[in-house]
Amino acid sequence: MIFNQAEIKELVGINDETITVVEKAFTDLATKSVVMPPIMRVDIPEYNGEVDVKTAYIPGSELFALKVSSGFFDNFKLGLPSANGLMMLISSVTGEPKALLLDNGYLTDIRTAAAGAVAAKYLANDTIYTAGVIGAGAQARYQIKALHKVRDFKEVIVYGPTESRVIAFKQEMERDLDVNVHIATNPEHVVALSEVVITTTPATSPVIQEAWLHPGVHITAMGSDAEHKQELEASILKRADIYVSDVKTQCLRLGELRSAVEEGLFSKETDVIELGELTSGKKTGRTDSSEITVADLTGTGAQDTAIAVYALNQLRRKQEIYVKE
Amino acid sequence: MIFNQAEIKELVGINDETITVVEKAFTDLATKSVVMPPIMRVDIPEYNGEVDVKTAYIPGSELFALKVSSGFFDNFKLGLPSANGLMMLISSVTGEPKALLLDNGYLTDIRTAAAGAVAAKYLANDTIYTAGVIGAGAQARYQIKALHKVRDFKEVIVYGPTESRVIAFKQEMERDLDVNVHIATNPEHVVALSEVVITTTPATSPVIQEAWLHPGVHITAMGSDAEHKQELEASILKRADIYVSDVKTQCLRLGELRSAVEEGLFSKETDVIELGELTSGKKTGRTDSSEITVADLTGTGAQDTAIAVYALNQLRRKQEIYVKE
Repeated sequence: MIFNQAEIKELVGINDETITVVEKAFTDLATKSVVMPPIMRVDIPEYNGEVDVKTAYIPGSELFALKVSSGFFDNFKLGLPSANGLMMLISSVTGEPKALLLDNGYLTDIRTAAAGAVAAKYLANDTIYTAGVIGAGAQARYQIKALHKVRDFKEVIVYGPTESRVIAFKQEMERDLDVNVHIATNPEHVVALSEVVITTTPATSPVIQEAWLHPGVHITAMGSDAEHKQELEASILKRADIYVSDVKTQCLRLGELRSAVEEGLFSKETDVIELGELTSGKKTGRTDSSEITVADLTGTGAQDTAIAVYALNQLRRKQEIYVKE
Repeated sequence: MIFNQAEIKELVGINDETITVVEKAFTDLATKSVVMPPIMRVDIPEYNGEVDVKTAYIPGSELFALKVSSGFFDNFKLGLPSANGLMMLISSVTGEPKALLLDNGYLTDIRTAAAGAVAAKYLANDTIYTAGVIGAGAQARYQIKALHKVRDFKEVIVYGPTESRVIAFKQEMERDLDVNVHIATNPEHVVALSEVVITTTPATSPVIQEAWLHPGVHITAMGSDAEHKQELEASILKRADIYVSDVKTQCLRLGELRSAVEEGLFSKETDVIELGELTSGKKTGRTDSSEITVADLTGTGAQDTAIAVYALNQLRRKQEIYVKE
């Protein structure tokens, strides 16, 4: 069974269901013996490319996903998108490959944005007026749409380096959500004016400084997913009242936590809250409106398995309906 | 582009070409900066299953393979084969998935047997009369057929625990090769009577003892590919005049070398010859007919990429011929 991106897009989007599916994946990570090997990575420096393989088996799930995603950053010279990706669904019972989702990274976008919403659900103040986002690409849009499912803000403030993309962001958000979008001239303004800030950049040096923080702000940093990336000044993690990793071992290698450890602000052994400990109720998120909170999201194989199984179920359901007709 | 096992079997087999392709993969490992991340493994104990992911990028190759292979050892209860597997070919230039080879482990069988032939080419005596094999399954057959491409023996001696399979082995080998097959009643007889011995078992404790060795014998152990497997008494590696790993780091984790290190016979840092050092001429294999030699094969992503690219080229060539007709 092979499905393409268009078929998947028709049935899977940012909504309460997908956010719930991803929230459950984090709870599973904290409460079940999920088998999630380290990310496999193939670097191809000759072509400025990298291929990542992620997977996770969640006990009780009949299928698990193996995701292959790539970024080849010279592809634009060939008129091709930099990202490619697909998910293979494999039977957890027999090992047989069962389906191929040629989603081209779409499901990754959805599960990543959903994780942002889950983090905000437990860490952001209940009432927020302005959501800020740094970066104006696809993920910035999905993050704001997902956040809007869990927090009812009316204002959005965005900063991005490319004016045309920022304008397109504004148009799309104002069309799809009941919000006003303001364009900031620098990241500091975004932080100053927002109660929730999401960073969605491929930055390799901090785009947010500790000095800009204000009481009550929640930051979700989802850009860093490689050893050389960093979006937050490392001292922000120390300053935060609550710092949450999606998975500590991954954040130590690929996330904001890596820089904080390298700068001696955390030790590798420091106890860190994982997102699944919040969703499962094992630990508590925000308890005071003035707390500063940070979520560090590197992306997990458990999210991939959860969204892929959900997508396949949606696709199967549709096929059955067609058959009945 | 998706191809199934039957299409692949028609065009790819044990022959001089596939042995050359695999030999070149080992030379590439020793001479190029091949990117070959550690094997990714998902264990699913509930269903007695495991899924392995292997990959390697060989510089200069337009495509690289990502192989997903599984063994679910309760599948027989469902009337299903235990092994499943496929290879995905990905562009090294753009990251785009280009082809899917649903070979169900067939290409792994071929590239594994070819590696055995390559090892024997550099390590076995030139003239051998009897080839021995322990195990009588599919890989035992492929190994003997591949060995026959590089050494012209007339006698084969086999030991296997299941009589019906041993008899089927004898019939197939005598039909396909110009050899007589003798059935041994224990592994010791196989070693005693053979100048080359191949072990093709899933054993977790030694099936060959050091005391059985005789001058001039070459052993290829290809069964061990997991942390708990072992086919050779560890002292055999120490006793051997030449011990060769396919890839040292993998053999330390998954091969015979693991047990030898655990028993204190080798240190992790001991210099070990890798097969690619022989094929590239960097190091010398057998130099004396009385030497005892051992090859420890765990299976490499480089072999997978080489055989998959070869298979795809064969398949494409055939399609072009069809188009021309």
